[in-house]
Amino acid sequence: MIQQIHHIGIAVKSLAEGSQLYRALGLEPTAPEEVSEQKVMVTMIDVGESRVELLESTDPQGPVGRFLTKKGEGIHHFALQVNNLEEALARLRAQGLDLIDEVPRPGAHGTRVAFVHPRSAQGVLLELVEVP
Amino acid sequence: MIQQIHHIGIAVKSLAEGSQLYRALGLEPTAPEEVSEQKVMVTMIDVGESRVELLESTDPQGPVGRFLTKKGEGIHHFALQVNNLEEALARLRAQGLDLIDEVPRPGAHGTRVAFVHPRSAQGVLLELVEVP
Repeated sequence: MIQQIHHIGIAVKSLAEGSQLYRALGLEPTAPEEVSEQKVMVTMIDVGESRVELLESTDPQGPVGRFLTKKGEGIHHFALQVNNLEEALARLRAQGLDLIDEVPRPGAHGTRVAFVHPRSAQGVLLELVEVP
Repeated sequence: MIQQIHHIGIAVKSLAEGSQLYRALGLEPTAPEEVSEQKVMVTMIDVGESRVELLESTDPQGPVGRFLTKKGEGIHHFALQVNNLEEALARLRAQGLDLIDEVPRPGAHGTRVAFVHPRSAQGVLLELVEVP
């Protein structure tokens, strides 16, 4: 059901500054790309079967903008890749766990995603991703 | 140099409660193990080439105990696996980045580890791990 860690999302003030550490470790951040629905610019850094996503806010009222204001830079969420998102959501509901998304919604690059509520995930914003 | 995401460490109040979500997703948490130097009990959950580590504090003055008091449950750190830890630390120092550990120290299961300071990693507590 769960295949791998899909990505770790890190809220940063600046993609350029945030990329420096990963470059120093020999990794190659992608060119920044805007994800307008999420009000962020994103740089991705492939690491094995997973990736680190650096998220720079484009709107203080967006999800990453509010996170930066409240908590400052740091890990914003992480994502597990599942082979059947509906089944995963049904299993979580059956355990009485709270979901932010009761049904899948479109993610980047043709994926479908849903978020588990942090109150049911030990304070973690957990994303589930199904890759086509 | 960087091979994969080695693990994500999550500070939880209770390993038993924290395991429920991952069990619901079909994953199998290991039996809790004490890591006395870190003042934690740890449950590991294999996910692809990586793992999620749930960390329950055994001492309010330990690193996870202080984190829980200050920030509550949530992602405490994440770890990248490197093939040569000394070389990785030298590269980071050459970029002027701040390290918590200037030299590697022993980690669990025969690994050697070093932490990068959050002020040089966008608020993230980043661990580098060399696996023997």
